Amino acid sequence: MEVPLPGLPERVTIYEVGPRDGLQNEKAVVPVEVKAEFVARLAGAGLRTIETTSFVHPKWVPQLADAEDLLAALPPSGGAPRPVLVPNERGLDRALANGVTEIAIFGSATETFARRNLNRTVDESIAMFEPVVARARAEGLWVRAYVSMVCGDPWEGDVPIEQVVSVSSRLMDLGCSQLSLGDTIGVGTPGQVTALIEAHVAAGIGTDRLAVHFHDTYGQALANTLAALRAGVTTVDASAGGLGGCPYAESATGNLATEDLVWMLNGLGIDTGVDLAKLAATSQWMAGRLGRPSPSRVVQALAPP
Amino acid sequence: MEVPLPGLPERVTIYEVGPRDGLQNEKAVVPVEVKAEFVARLAGAGLRTIETTSFVHPKWVPQLADAEDLLAALPPSGGAPRPVLVPNERGLDRALANGVTEIAIFGSATETFARRNLNRTVDESIAMFEPVVARARAEGLWVRAYVSMVCGDPWEGDVPIEQVVSVSSRLMDLGCSQLSLGDTIGVGTPGQVTALIEAHVAAGIGTDRLAVHFHDTYGQALANTLAALRAGVTTVDASAGGLGGCPYAESATGNLATEDLVWMLNGLGIDTGVDLAKLAATSQWMAGRLGRPSPSRVVQALAPP
Repeated sequence: MEVPLPGLPERVTIYEVGPRDGLQNEKAVVPVEVKAEFVARLAGAGLRTIETTSFVHPKWVPQLADAEDLLAALPPSGGAPRPVLVPNERGLDRALANGVTEIAIFGSATETFARRNLNRTVDESIAMFEPVVARARAEGLWVRAYVSMVCGDPWEGDVPIEQVVSVSSRLMDLGCSQLSLGDTIGVGTPGQVTALIEAHVAAGIGTDRLAVHFHDTYGQALANTLAALRAGVTTVDASAGGLGGCPYAESATGNLATEDLVWMLNGLGIDTGVDLAKLAATSQWMAGRLGRPSPSRVVQALAPP
Repeated sequence: MEVPLPGLPERVTIYEVGPRDGLQNEKAVVPVEVKAEFVARLAGAGLRTIETTSFVHPKWVPQLADAEDLLAALPPSGGAPRPVLVPNERGLDRALANGVTEIAIFGSATETFARRNLNRTVDESIAMFEPVVARARAEGLWVRAYVSMVCGDPWEGDVPIEQVVSVSSRLMDLGCSQLSLGDTIGVGTPGQVTALIEAHVAAGIGTDRLAVHFHDTYGQALANTLAALRAGVTTVDASAGGLGGCPYAESATGNLATEDLVWMLNGLGIDTGVDLAKLAATSQWMAGRLGRPSPSRVVQALAPP
C-alpha cells in the first residue's frame, strides 16, 4: 500500500554502487563479461546512476583490475551517469583515456583509516586529491567525494561530527559537486545521522549536494536512510542485492541493498524509476555467479533461489 | 555514539516474542529444557517482558506442545511479565491452572486469515474471544490483543486502515489492556505505519495502549519501528536473533531481531535495560540449537558462529 509520509522528499536519486563498492568487497573475482551483463541489467531495471568500477591499482583491488575492459564492454549509457572511482592522478589519467565523464574520489574522516586505506595522513590525502579534482574539473568532469567512517571507525571508535564536517568541507572546497557520507562500518543510528547532516548543512554543504552511504552491518541502514530523507537528503547510495559483505560469514551484510531501499520508497510513494522485480532477479542471478545468497531481505522474499 | 533524535520517546519497553512467536515458526521442535534455558538467558540479558509459550492445541502448533512443562521448568520471574498466548476458553483454563497472570489473544484484521488461522470469520473469532477476555479480566489477568495482517494480507493484498481500526476497536472493547499491531507478512512501510497508528489514536486507542509487531521479510522492520516511535508508540515487539523465519530458505527472516532494535535504541540514547552482548550470545547459542544461522545483522556482527 502506498502511503506517503509528510516531510520526506518527493524524489530520490539512487546511486547504485554494486558493480564497484559491492564487487570490490566480494571474495570472488567476477569475469568481465559477467560484470558487463550485471551493469546492463541494472540499467535495464531502471537504475540510472551506476558507479561501474575503479581505477585503483590492481595490486590493491584485484577484483576491479579489468576496469578498462569493462568500460569497453559496456553498451553506451545514453547520457546516464556512470561514475568511476579514481584514487589518484594515475587513476584520473586512465579515466580520461577511457572517456569517463564522472569520477569519485574516496577520502577518510579518520587518520587511522586514511593511513590504512590510502597510506597517507588525512592532510596528505587531501593534498593528493587536490590536483586530481582540479584537472578533472578543468576537463569538465563531474566529481563526487566520498568521506568514509563518518559514524565510527574500527580503530578510533566514535568519530566526532565536527571532525567529519572538517574533512568534508576540505574535500568540497577542492571543487567537488557531491559529497557522500559513508558509514563504512554500519554502526550509526538515526539520531547521529540526523545530527551529521544538520552539521553539514550548517557548514554550508546543503542537502542538494549530499548523499548518504550506509552499510547494513548492524541492520541500521534503512532506518538511517529514513532519517536522512527526513533531514532533506535526496540521493541515496545502495548496492543491488546488498553486495559487498565482508566474506567472513556466508550471510554477512554489506551495503544497503537497493531492493530493500526501493521497497521502502515505493511504499512511501517516492518514485525511483526502478522495476523491483527485474532488479531482484538481477541480484539473484548475480548471487548465483558469486556462489553466495544475497543478504537482501527483498531479494530473498521476491526471488528465492 | 549516542545521539538522541528529537520527538522520540524517552523509554521503550521491549516485548520479547522469541520463545513463542519465534519458536512457533521454526521448523525444529526444541526440547523443553533448551526452551527453559533460552527464557532464563533472555531474562538474564535484561529482557523483562517475555512471551513464553502458547496454550494452542498441540495438533496445530506441535512446537509449543510442551507449554505446561516449560512453565513448570522456568525459574520464578520475580514479578516480570511472562504472557502466554491463549487461543480460546480451553487455553484460558490451562493458563489459569498453571498460574499464568498475563495472556495474549490473537485476532486477524482480514477475513481470509481469520478463516485460515482461526477457522472462523472475524465476527466469530471476536465472539470466541469475548468470554475468554471477560473471564481473564474477572480473574485479574492482564490481557493483550494481537491484531494481525495490519499492513497487508497474502490473499487479500492491501488491507484498508479503517478495516484494521474496526477490528482493533472491537478487540479493545472486550476489555484488553494492550493492542499489538502486527505486520505479519512484513510488507508495510513507514508512511503506512504512521497512518495506522494515527488512525488508532483518532479512534481512541492511545499510544500508551499500542504496541507494534514487525516482521523483517522485506527489510522494513526497523525503519517501521522508527516511524512508530516517532508516532508515540513506546512498546515494541521483537524476537531474539530474529527467530521465526518461515523455513523456506536458510536465511529467511522472521520477526524484527531484538538485537537490531536494541542497537538502534542504544544509539538513540533510549534505555532498554538489555545487555546486548549477552543477548547476542544467547541468540548465537540458540541458532546452534536450531541448526541455522541467526538472520539478525547484529548477531552476525557481534557473535559470528
